[in-house]
Parts: sequence; structure tokens; C-alpha cells
Amino acid sequence: MATREDTLLEHVDYWLSELAEDREPAVDWLEGLSEADIAFALECLPFEQRLTIWQTVPPELRGAVLVELHDEHRRSLLKAAPPDALLQWLGKTHPEDLLELMDDLPGQLGRKVLHRMDSEDREQLKNALGYDDDQVGRWLSFKVITAEASTPGRLFRKALRETGIPEMTDVIVLLDDDGRFQGCLSLDAAMQTPSTSPLSDFVDDELTPLNPASSLHEAAQRLRAAGRAMLPVVDETGTVMGRFTSRDALDVMLEEKERQMMQLSSGLDEEDLFSPVRRAVPKRGLWLGINLITALLAAWVIGLFELALSQWVALAVMMPVVASMGGIAGSQTLGLAIRGLATGQLGAANVRNLIRKELILGTINAFFWAIAIGLIAAWWFDSWMLMGIIAFAVLVNIIAASLAGVIVPWVLSRMNIDPAIAGSVVLTTVTDVVGFFAFLGTATVALSLAG
Amino acid sequence: MATREDTLLEHVDYWLSELAEDREPAVDWLEGLSEADIAFALECLPFEQRLTIWQTVPPELRGAVLVELHDEHRRSLLKAAPPDALLQWLGKTHPEDLLELMDDLPGQLGRKVLHRMDSEDREQLKNALGYDDDQVGRWLSFKVITAEASTPGRLFRKALRETGIPEMTDVIVLLDDDGRFQGCLSLDAAMQTPSTSPLSDFVDDELTPLNPASSLHEAAQRLRAAGRAMLPVVDETGTVMGRFTSRDALDVMLEEKERQMMQLSSGLDEEDLFSPVRRAVPKRGLWLGINLITALLAAWVIGLFELALSQWVALAVMMPVVASMGGIAGSQTLGLAIRGLATGQLGAANVRNLIRKELILGTINAFFWAIAIGLIAAWWFDSWMLMGIIAFAVLVNIIAASLAGVIVPWVLSRMNIDPAIAGSVVLTTVTDVVGFFAFLGTATVALSLAG
Repeated sequence: MATREDTLLEHVDYWLSELAEDREPAVDWLEGLSEADIAFALECLPFEQRLTIWQTVPPELRGAVLVELHDEHRRSLLKAAPPDALLQWLGKTHPEDLLELMDDLPGQLGRKVLHRMDSEDREQLKNALGYDDDQVGRWLSFKVITAEASTPGRLFRKALRETGIPEMTDVIVLLDDDGRFQGCLSLDAAMQTPSTSPLSDFVDDELTPLNPASSLHEAAQRLRAAGRAMLPVVDETGTVMGRFTSRDALDVMLEEKERQMMQLSSGLDEEDLFSPVRRAVPKRGLWLGINLITALLAAWVIGLFELALSQWVALAVMMPVVASMGGIAGSQTLGLAIRGLATGQLGAANVRNLIRKELILGTINAFFWAIAIGLIAAWWFDSWMLMGIIAFAVLVNIIAASLAGVIVPWVLSRMNIDPAIAGSVVLTTVTDVVGFFAFLGTATVALSLAG
Repeated sequence: MATREDTLLEHVDYWLSELAEDREPAVDWLEGLSEADIAFALECLPFEQRLTIWQTVPPELRGAVLVELHDEHRRSLLKAAPPDALLQWLGKTHPEDLLELMDDLPGQLGRKVLHRMDSEDREQLKNALGYDDDQVGRWLSFKVITAEASTPGRLFRKALRETGIPEMTDVIVLLDDDGRFQGCLSLDAAMQTPSTSPLSDFVDDELTPLNPASSLHEAAQRLRAAGRAMLPVVDETGTVMGRFTSRDALDVMLEEKERQMMQLSSGLDEEDLFSPVRRAVPKRGLWLGINLITALLAAWVIGLFELALSQWVALAVMMPVVASMGGIAGSQTLGLAIRGLATGQLGAANVRNLIRKELILGTINAFFWAIAIGLIAAWWFDSWMLMGIIAFAVLVNIIAASLAGVIVPWVLSRMNIDPAIAGSVVLTTVTDVVGFFAFLGTATVALSLAG
């Protein structure tokens, strides 16, 4: 069965082959594709071709497609469009979508767009724009059902018939006489409220609203714990700003997951599959530069033992094995610690317990692999002295790595540095330096004793 | 402001200090904690202490707490409990929760629990148990509102008053005369259906049900695209098995995210923060063993050039720099490719384009860093020959790494091996081997020409 992704990649294939032969692809490809589908397919295209295909997207869809794109892609397309054209299609874009685009609009364009809106929409948007990109206040949708707290059940239901029930609605928001937030009740309770009783009789105190200043991650967790499809977002003055739905929460999680995939496997924060070369080179170069510094540090440690290395070439051969066993053992502990810190399950209360456990685990593994590697080295280079030296170095390095695997991310997180990004570079530096020191240092001592 | 995590970690702290002094912690700690909270706090405890605290959880809550635990934790607690006690608290557990626990129950216990249920629940459960752990059929919840397609609006609303509207309900499922799935309509449409018109007049064909055999990931994506709080799950015979909600989808995403965090940073699939040592040692050992093989391969390559190494110790010093620059450059490309493969945006249609782009990018970066490292080496070891050799090796290795960064995950995914797990080990092996060959091989040639 062809998945949605496969079908969309077929579109991409068709475009690429048409464009390769200098033909304009037929425009009817859009039929049957949702905004999300179009965005997905655009992201699969190399940058130049993406711009060409983007021109064929009808202007009234462009705002909605931009919302579905990842930040990097969105910015590059916005940059490529002439401001007049931009203003035209943004005029046709839904306020909720505009909210997401606002930050990426070039120059004064955002202000101009706001100016053209009707005053109610503008107020809502301005309010939301006061919050950061990673706060709930910024990710609102506006379809909340509100009612005065004193509304009797029958009247509420009559009104509901007229306004309709938006998707993802299972919570109703009650307002006091001043139009401020008073409480929530479930849609079910509102439907069951006796005809003449006020809705406020059935307020559910467990349905607490979200604070617009709370982080997206926190809001997604709160919503998940509440087990509801939505929660209202209410600011300090009691104004109901909008709602945060479990679809929003899903988007947040998906985005976090994709970003995490990039960070953990490459150290890059976010990068477009086909970002323009001039933008990708400096981004990647930075990380290569940081790595060069740590690699030179390791090289400097090796350089301290030039004498031993020149006397015994087996040291140069086996040296990467010592470093890499430490690196892997450390990264296993690191993975556990990074996850624990991210979920909040690792804290001051139990970090000592984790260190203790990892130390025991590391020591057991260290003994086993020290002996195994020692035997291999003894057989390969026919030297019992090498066996002793490398076994000792592996033992020290794996134990040190198990310690560093908890301590490095712990210290980084105390310094407010995300251990998921920097943890593995720092850890590798530790295991390289400790490994080379233990191995070449012991060898130097052994050689001077033997000689 | 103290987050939920902080508060729960305070509980953990209290337990640990009481247990350390051989006191039984007061049992009233449970007050105000949800099942999810209890599960969270239990996971923060070292294994021995976790067992002790687990005994204080009231039996009627245990099933629900187990559901909230991660697989590893759950299994270890289930294993530790005597079967009779287990059977007792499982009898008090909700069928939906049982569905999730069933796979982890030891021996014949699952069958016994099923046997004790009433026949309707049993049928539902048996049906769901026919699906795999990662299929929607297995992650059902049962609170779906169904109605006969011919039900007039008024009658439907009357019935709804009696049954109530469960949370996360914005879709109503219609059944034909035989009780088979006929179609869906939105809750809104059902509430607006004229008193005497049948609900079937307002079926929404865009609300297509989920197939119980589809993967959780796919289902979460489908639900997200539909923008609804739930979709019904309907099997091939047209039986409405239950529903999949956006809360379920959130759970799926969260679990995927946590697993990914472990895999990408450590190569471990899943491991408990405080798993018992005897279970963790072999798991980690396997990965260390695989790494040892690749490290020995790299060592073997180095060993081929013993002569050059013994003549010129600077080679041993700079050798890790060459390998590590290739490793980082490769992992940047790898990160991009892994994400593209995971989101489905990288496929046969555009993999060639990605290779081309990465090759251009890699070559630009390679030239820059080759010159930089060459200059550093020339200054450090006062040798223009070393500069030429190392610059050439860095150039070759970074370019090769950029190629391998796409090709390795691509080939792995074609072989149905998850590139997120194996990609980085294979890639590092490639960059080590290529780096050592290019550096030491060129040096050998240069030395023999110079000598």
C-alpha cells in the first residue's frame, strides 16, 4: 500500500524530471493535495526547483502552505517573494495562520498586514504577539466556546445550535459579568445542565486554564494529563485569549522530535534538507571548528608521549581502540542521563543514585572488556606488557566514561546548556583525553621501567 | 515556580532519605497524586527502593499505574509480584488498561484474567489482542458514540443526553442495520441535524476511519491531518472496534521521542534509568562488542602503516584529527538524511539531488578545513611535507564523509535497518578507515619518495 509520503514523492519525481527538461510542469498537480501535502512536497525539492514550483501555487493558498512549512523553508520562500505580492496573499490568510507567519515577515510587512485587518482580529493578534515563539500565547487558536456563567442550560444549548461546535471542543469556558474568565465545564456537563440551572453550577475545578506565558512543552504535557481535546488560554487579567488543542500539542511534539533527531545525530539545530549552500556552509563550519579544537586537544595529549610512540609503534595502532571503547561506554550513560534530564526524572534527589549505579555497571563492563582487549593485543603484538598496559587503560577509561556520562550532562544542564547538543562533544573529549593519558602514560612508565 | 517534575522529585527525595534510615515512609504521600504522577515518581527510584515503595501503592490503583509506566519498568514490577496478588489487582483494572498490560503478564495470567471478565468486555479485548503492539488495533479506547444511521436528529440528541458525551468526542459513528460501520459525521453536524431528518443525511466523507492494522505512527499522522480529537477504528468486517484519540496520538509521539533520544545518543533501544545491573550489563555489552570490532578494523588499517608511523611520530599525533573531522562532517550529513528518511521526505525521487548538494557543500568545507589543518600541522611540526599530506587526507575524508553520510543511511533503510540506530557506527567506521588510509597511505608514499 502506497503511503501518503510515497505518493507525494511521486509528485516530486515528476516535477524534477519536467524541470530537468526545461518544461513547466502542469499546474493541475495541486488537485487533491491539502496545504500540508503541498508543504511536504515543496520541502522535498532542491532549493532552485522549489522556488519554481512555489510560483505555481495559487496565491490564496500560499499563506496556509507557509504555515505548514518548517521555519527555514518558510523564511527562504518569504525572502524570495516581492513585498507587494506578499502583502496581497497575506491579506487572504486566516488570522491564526498569520500569527505563525508574523515573525518571519521581512521589514515592516507585519505591521502593514495588521493595519489592514478588522479591529477585533487585530486586537487578538496583537495580544498574542506579545508572547515568545515557544510560549502558548503565541500558538493560540481562537475557536473557543464561551458563555456567561449565569446562562441557564436551555439557553446555552439554544445558542450552541446557532454557533455550532468547533472540532476538538470538549470544554466550555464560563465568563463572569465583566467578561473575565470564571471557570470551565465539560461539554458533556453543559449539555446535561438542567434547563433552568445556570452553567456555573457544574463548573469542573480540575479543568484549569493554561497560562499564555507557559512553554509549549509544558502546555502539551498539561493537556495530555488533563485528557481533554483542548484547554483555554487565559492571561493574568482574566482575558480568554484563545485555546490550545491537542492537535497543537501534537504539532509541538512532532516539531520537537524532528529537531531532536537533527541535534542528537549531527549537533545541528535545524537545517533544511536542501538549504542553499551559502547558508549551510557557515552553520556546519562552526561545529567542525569546535570539533577541531577538541581534536587538537587530544592530539596535544598524544604529542606529550612522542617518545613512547616512537619506541613502540603498537601504541599508535591500539590507541584509537582505547579511546573509542571509552567513548561508546560514556555515550550509553550519556543517553540515559540526557533522557532523564529531558523528562525531568533525573534531579538533585537521585543523581547520586544514578552515578552509583552507572559506576557499578561501568566497572563490571570495564573489567570484562579490559581483559578481552588485553588478550587481543597480547596475541596481535605478542607482548604481555602491552596486554597489561592496554587492559589498565581500558579499565580506567570505561570507568571514567561512566562517571563523565552522568556528570557532564548534569553540569551542562545546571549551566543552562542543552546536554543533547553539547553533551556528546564534551564527553568524547573527556574519553579521548583520559584514554590517551591512561594508555600512553602507562606505556611511558612501563617502557622506562623495562628499559 | 515549581514544576510538576520538581514536586515529584521532592517525593523521591523524601522516600530515599527515609529508606536510607530504614524507616517505612508514610503512606499518605499518595494523596493528590494521579496514576501518571505515581508512575513518574516510581521511575525516578533505584530498583530496590522502587520495589519497596511499590508495595505501598493501594492494589486498586496498581493496574492504572502500571499502564503509565514504561515497558521496562512495568515488566520488572510485574515479575516481582506473586501471581495471586497480581490476579487480584488485575481484576480491578479497567479493560482498556488491561489491554496494554496483557503482553507483559507472566505465564497463563492473561488468559485467567480474560476468563474472569464479562463476555462483552472479553470479546472486545480478544479482538484487539489480535493486533501487534505497534498497531492501532492494540491502542484502542472503547468510548465511541455510535448511532444507527437512520436515527432522526431529535432522537439522537435525546439518547445523547442519557449516555453523555465522553471527553475527546467530536465525531459520531453511524452503523447500518447490521451494526456495521456506515460512516461518520461531526458532533456538530449531529447536533444540528433537523429533528426529523436521519443523521445519515449529514455524513462527512472526509472523516474516514482508521484501519486497526495501520501503524501507530501512521494513525497519529492521520489524526493530525484530520484535525479531529478522535477517529473510529474499524476492521475489515466493518466492526467498530473502538477509537483512537489525539491523546493516544500524543502518547505515541512522546514515546517515540523518548526512544529516539536514547537511540540517537547511545545506540540503546530502551533502558530504564535504574534498571537492575544484571539486565543492563549484557545489553550494553553487545553494543560495546560491535564497537570493538569496528575499532579493531580501524586499528588494523593503522597497523598496515607501521613503517611510516615508526619513522615519523607526528603521524600518530595528527591521525585522530583527520579521522574526527571526517566523522563530524559525515554525522552532519547523516543527521539530515536520517531525519529525511524518518519524515519520508527523502526517497528515490530526490536522493541523487541530496547527494549532489552534500557533495558540493562537503567539498567547500573540505577545502577550507584542509588548508586550516594543514597550516596548523606545518607550524606545529615545522614541516611543509606534513602540511601537504594532512591537507590532502582531510580533503579526501570530508568529501568521502559527505557522500557516506547520505549513502550509508540510504542503504541501511533499504535493508530495513533503522539508520537512526546503526547509521552512526557504520559511518564512523567509514570515516576512520578512509581517514587513516588517506593520511598514513599518503605519508608512506611521501616518505618513500623523500627517502
